Amino acid sequence: MKSVGIDGISIWSGKLSLDLANVFAPAVGENPDKYTKGLGLYTCSFPDVREDIVTMGANAAYKLMIAEGLDPSEIGRIDVATESSFDSSKPISTYISGCLEQVFGEEFRNVNKGERKFACIAGTQCIDDAHNWILSGRNEGKSALVIATDTALYERGNPGEATQGAGAVAMLISEDPSIMELSLKQGYSSVDETDFLKPNQQFPSVDGKRSVQVYLSLMRNALMNFEERSGKMNIEEFQFVPFHVPFPGMVRKAASLGYRYMTRGTPIENELEKLIGPKPEREKFSEDEKYTESIREYMKLLEGTEVYKKWYKHVIEPTVQISSKAGNWYTGSVHLARASSLLHAESEGLDLVDKKILVGSYGSGAQAEIHVETIKEGWEEKIKKMDIYSQLDSRRSLSFEEYEQIHDVHNYSKEIDLDELTNYKNEFICTGYGKMGENTYEFV
Amino acid sequence: MKSVGIDGISIWSGKLSLDLANVFAPAVGENPDKYTKGLGLYTCSFPDVREDIVTMGANAAYKLMIAEGLDPSEIGRIDVATESSFDSSKPISTYISGCLEQVFGEEFRNVNKGERKFACIAGTQCIDDAHNWILSGRNEGKSALVIATDTALYERGNPGEATQGAGAVAMLISEDPSIMELSLKQGYSSVDETDFLKPNQQFPSVDGKRSVQVYLSLMRNALMNFEERSGKMNIEEFQFVPFHVPFPGMVRKAASLGYRYMTRGTPIENELEKLIGPKPEREKFSEDEKYTESIREYMKLLEGTEVYKKWYKHVIEPTVQISSKAGNWYTGSVHLARASSLLHAESEGLDLVDKKILVGSYGSGAQAEIHVETIKEGWEEKIKKMDIYSQLDSRRSLSFEEYEQIHDVHNYSKEIDLDELTNYKNEFICTGYGKMGENTYEFV
Repeated sequence: MKSVGIDGISIWSGKLSLDLANVFAPAVGENPDKYTKGLGLYTCSFPDVREDIVTMGANAAYKLMIAEGLDPSEIGRIDVATESSFDSSKPISTYISGCLEQVFGEEFRNVNKGERKFACIAGTQCIDDAHNWILSGRNEGKSALVIATDTALYERGNPGEATQGAGAVAMLISEDPSIMELSLKQGYSSVDETDFLKPNQQFPSVDGKRSVQVYLSLMRNALMNFEERSGKMNIEEFQFVPFHVPFPGMVRKAASLGYRYMTRGTPIENELEKLIGPKPEREKFSEDEKYTESIREYMKLLEGTEVYKKWYKHVIEPTVQISSKAGNWYTGSVHLARASSLLHAESEGLDLVDKKILVGSYGSGAQAEIHVETIKEGWEEKIKKMDIYSQLDSRRSLSFEEYEQIHDVHNYSKEIDLDELTNYKNEFICTGYGKMGENTYEFV
Repeated sequence: MKSVGIDGISIWSGKLSLDLANVFAPAVGENPDKYTKGLGLYTCSFPDVREDIVTMGANAAYKLMIAEGLDPSEIGRIDVATESSFDSSKPISTYISGCLEQVFGEEFRNVNKGERKFACIAGTQCIDDAHNWILSGRNEGKSALVIATDTALYERGNPGEATQGAGAVAMLISEDPSIMELSLKQGYSSVDETDFLKPNQQFPSVDGKRSVQVYLSLMRNALMNFEERSGKMNIEEFQFVPFHVPFPGMVRKAASLGYRYMTRGTPIENELEKLIGPKPEREKFSEDEKYTESIREYMKLLEGTEVYKKWYKHVIEPTVQISSKAGNWYTGSVHLARASSLLHAESEGLDLVDKKILVGSYGSGAQAEIHVETIKEGWEEKIKKMDIYSQLDSRRSLSFEEYEQIHDVHNYSKEIDLDELTNYKNEFICTGYGKMGENTYEFV
């Protein structure tokens, strides 16, 4: 069987940033700890006036093409994952390839372009479609571009306002990749849920508490489904476990659930039992509520053990470093988490070739997916090319008043005229609207 | 290599119909011939008050599951193609599987569900993703459900109002199919175009003239790309050539273009030259306009020849029979055309096993795709199960006043209270809205 996977990654963050602890919290009268300690978020990325999902996606793809020295003739498909699309019919991939053709010439004319929607799992589905296309041999030697791009804004005053973000992740999916090889097996769990949705509206309806419950329950079921298909997992074989990151605090919950699940029936479970007692069993409780309360206490004890804390520090913490500075990027989220862990490993000089990671994708609505990736020879050279931290550091910080204006600029129901806050150079920008109501773009 | 393709088809039409010649034309003061002779349309399907893309998709899928005796455990993926989605985040496939679970039980919980957008080409892309998934062997023996569902409405008074429609096509994609085997090769042509789009609006912006030009130009380029990848085609090997059908008149243009393209350099071309002279060559004209005019005249002559008329009658006409009664179904369109030709062949008692068809998909925005399908042993039994003509015949006819009300009911910017015009029985209906703003559904 062919080896297929990720052969290049490039990230583009919205060019503005909002400091949650020092700017947002005081303005809305909240304790900064709610954001930094509770949610695990420090700053969020926002798009400048002339940025949107097309410019961010095109800029990420452009950087990837340049970094990997790619010629358009090497690309056979371009799939975009987004849940911020502004068109029900024309896919964002056609806008993005229109941008790229301004720079690379008319070479994407025989490429299959598409768009997938499913909250944050859509990016993983695009990778997966490319994976199957290459495995089947129908790619005729070509690679696929997968671009996850979103502007994750909530209505002003919505609790989700603290977890906004904006940016794009572009990935090259190829045969014999030099970063990550994808596993053939996947685990799924999927239900018709209304934890988070956008019925005929720009900003989401969110049931925060339900959203957390559904995320955890589906992630657990997807882990079970993966084991049914692929055999028992050994937690020690995974160097990192990147989960979908709506905010890092959510990953803390997913991590302890995943840890508990993967250590059951192992010597680690026996050790834990000696320290914090056995895991509560449903049969021993007459009420759901009491059982849930007991599980919550058990999980708190688990998270306090040295063995867990050590695992969390090495396996989970590296996956949320970008998100803690960039916020929620919806479809890009788990792909930021993967990149975050590899950047950490590269800076630490870790030897990762042939090591594995376990990837947990999630989309509200709702579906969770689990698969394994194996790190390939050459990964450090590829990862070194990524400049996301310098891009995050060079974002223009927003005052609260500027944040309010920028939120209005990107609100479709408002018409605001605002000068851009950053300079544009060597990048795609939105220049306005054409005669059919379409957005127009230019490389400056 | 495995044989993969279409193993079941089920169609659900919106339950109302508008007679274009006898009801619409007189009311808008137009000559009925504009619709019947010009566009090739007689009636259009509309959704009743409690129908929408979810109910139509779920009803088509339900009929398919019953007709093929499918158990949910045999399904590994459910992909929905639509350009009428009412949610930017939660995919329509989760709503549809929620409906199906009401009837079949909670058995779609480990299924990969998604949604694709690209006007009318998205359905073909979903089939293609399922094709690669099965070819790669990652389907673990399971099949895929692909559902193309749309409510194709235009703003009142828009020229497109004559080409509306609503319905869904559900298809089962399996290994060793009994209807159609898909070719491994495909041809693509794709550009960043604004012929038809829906930027932040329910009803499309359409540039009718440009839309026809882009359709024809991309279809020609996709034919060329298919030949480059797959070798010279022989027009005589194709029993039917189903094209994407925005309205049958469009297919008339695509058919003569395809015929001209596929007969070049063949004895048929020599015969034609004797009858109507050589095809005009661009080099011999000083102005684009004169060349275009000359080509138009040449095509008219071509369409008048006996050899072409005979080909058109046998190869093209059977593909537009459903559409001429059902209207434009966007993502379902080319899939209606395939079904239409097979229903015709079954009623004529044609022996089609191992015969081929050439399929031309198209999506505004814009992209064309060409591939070949081979008809498989057992196709008649499968096709016999389809009840689309009896469903079309049993639609409730609308008066013009009722049409105006039904259009308003499905217009998101209006709030109209209207009693349903048909009875609901053994089908899914929309029952209202839940607390998150989500649509709710029930099997009655």
